[in-house]
Amino acid sequence: MSSPFTDIANDQIRSLGERQLIKHIRDWLGECAPPSPFGMGDDTAVLKEPSQNLLTTDSLVFGRHFDASLPADIAGAKLLKRNLSDIAAMGGKPSVAVLAGFLPANTAISWLKQFVAGLHTCANEWDVAIVGGDLAQTDEFLGFNLTLNGHADRPLLRGAAKQDDLIWVTGELGGSIHNHHAHFQPRLKEGHYLASEIRIHSMIDVTDGLAKDLPTLLSRGLGAEIDLATLPLRGSIQKASDPLAAAFTDGEDYELLFTSSPDWEESLSHQKWDSIFETRLTCIGKVVTRKDSSSPMLDAKTHQPINYGEAYEHFR
Amino acid sequence: MSSPFTDIANDQIRSLGERQLIKHIRDWLGECAPPSPFGMGDDTAVLKEPSQNLLTTDSLVFGRHFDASLPADIAGAKLLKRNLSDIAAMGGKPSVAVLAGFLPANTAISWLKQFVAGLHTCANEWDVAIVGGDLAQTDEFLGFNLTLNGHADRPLLRGAAKQDDLIWVTGELGGSIHNHHAHFQPRLKEGHYLASEIRIHSMIDVTDGLAKDLPTLLSRGLGAEIDLATLPLRGSIQKASDPLAAAFTDGEDYELLFTSSPDWEESLSHQKWDSIFETRLTCIGKVVTRKDSSSPMLDAKTHQPINYGEAYEHFR
Repeated sequence: MSSPFTDIANDQIRSLGERQLIKHIRDWLGECAPPSPFGMGDDTAVLKEPSQNLLTTDSLVFGRHFDASLPADIAGAKLLKRNLSDIAAMGGKPSVAVLAGFLPANTAISWLKQFVAGLHTCANEWDVAIVGGDLAQTDEFLGFNLTLNGHADRPLLRGAAKQDDLIWVTGELGGSIHNHHAHFQPRLKEGHYLASEIRIHSMIDVTDGLAKDLPTLLSRGLGAEIDLATLPLRGSIQKASDPLAAAFTDGEDYELLFTSSPDWEESLSHQKWDSIFETRLTCIGKVVTRKDSSSPMLDAKTHQPINYGEAYEHFR
Repeated sequence: MSSPFTDIANDQIRSLGERQLIKHIRDWLGECAPPSPFGMGDDTAVLKEPSQNLLTTDSLVFGRHFDASLPADIAGAKLLKRNLSDIAAMGGKPSVAVLAGFLPANTAISWLKQFVAGLHTCANEWDVAIVGGDLAQTDEFLGFNLTLNGHADRPLLRGAAKQDDLIWVTGELGGSIHNHHAHFQPRLKEGHYLASEIRIHSMIDVTDGLAKDLPTLLSRGLGAEIDLATLPLRGSIQKASDPLAAAFTDGEDYELLFTSSPDWEESLSHQKWDSIFETRLTCIGKVVTRKDSSSPMLDAKTHQPINYGEAYEHFR
């Protein structure tokens, strides 16, 4: 017998946390898992063949990513929007998707119809075709997975920020759980616009909090100086006991975080932003050299490390 | 509140069964779900862009598709092989895949390592790269989904059988549950060979039983005459109380079922089969015209309908 479950604490995946677990899985896959950007490690994989096609997958679990307080159609749209946000973060356009459902036999047809209607409306809005799927029966668990294909002429990767780059974020940060996590707009048009601009160097969508996601833009030897006063705080956290902690560590912002060369701020491309998009755009800091021992993020005013630590770690 | 679950019997998805449920989901998706072969309805979707690329998704659920009696590495390979069998049924070659895991926190690292090792070995064997993934935490449920891309120069579709075609099946049928379901070889090389042969008209992989899968090869007005004596029965069902019922309705055969023009039997391509493949190949009947009211399958000897009815229906 080979039970998948164990009571031995240090053999449980909770002892690793999500980041370590993903690292282990990549190691176990060995040469079958190509290095980023062709494999895991960025917002989507960038395929070698067909060139610059994108592939990403995301799941939605009842009791984790949504609950009965969320209308079914909003949940259905959220499943697709999570994936769209990944395509947006590459500066790409989405194309076709496949849907997998894990459903208990007492799932309500009426609920599922609304869920699919929400997915349908969102797919229509962003010109995505749902070309296949799979249904699996469960005892009680309800969850979905969606895999989305796309394409980017110039994929904007992580780890490509340059020294002296400015750091930008769309929209607002923190407190997503109160409403934004289900009602956000994937920043596809914004991402596509940014990818067409050569002065933009590196991009990610903020889903695990700034503290976890910003360092992924920086290669070794680079750090970020953040002007804390500029951080665009979502209304729901402005009166929180520690709004900065929420801005740095709350998940599910689904906003674009990117770096540009310093001259982008004065460029026509940046000046045109407000005439094209209603989306708020804020410069929150700049990329600096970093001593290996120091924190990847510094307060621009005090030059002290920003120690909000790691954002939410799954499986713990 | 919008609970996904209901006690009202006729609003539960179990009142529909899998086939009706899939039909409903396609209807709910409306114009977002393109018609087969560009969307749902065949073994994989055939993409318009990039042309003839294939996309398929399949899941593996603990307690349904495998249990603790199956070594973890065999389970991991099975997840990929289920998808490979779909690519094989289109006559295609696989390329890249993404993996989604739904894992409780007490999943054993040692078990997961073995599971991924099995996936790794199988991916290596068939030259598949695992380019991305997603992990979601669950309370107790353990399941996986894998989405696989591929390509076929000439995809072999369902519903394309012609009158007087011969009907062929690879390997053996029935009793898969005893061993074959986890140890089958995806018929990729065979499928690819068949797709290169213009006399082969229509193909599917048998996963839900011959009774359910054979009719999908036949367009309106066509039926199948089966020579029951020729059916290749797997060893494990030869002494069953009703071996034919097992051959027609047992699931998870993962064999190729296809039709050819009558002259393929005499062709060089057919005669070469035995020199290229060790895989058994059996002609089990032929395609005939069908009165709309009659059964899609007839006993070639008695001309009586074959009434093994529908194979296993999920969610019931």
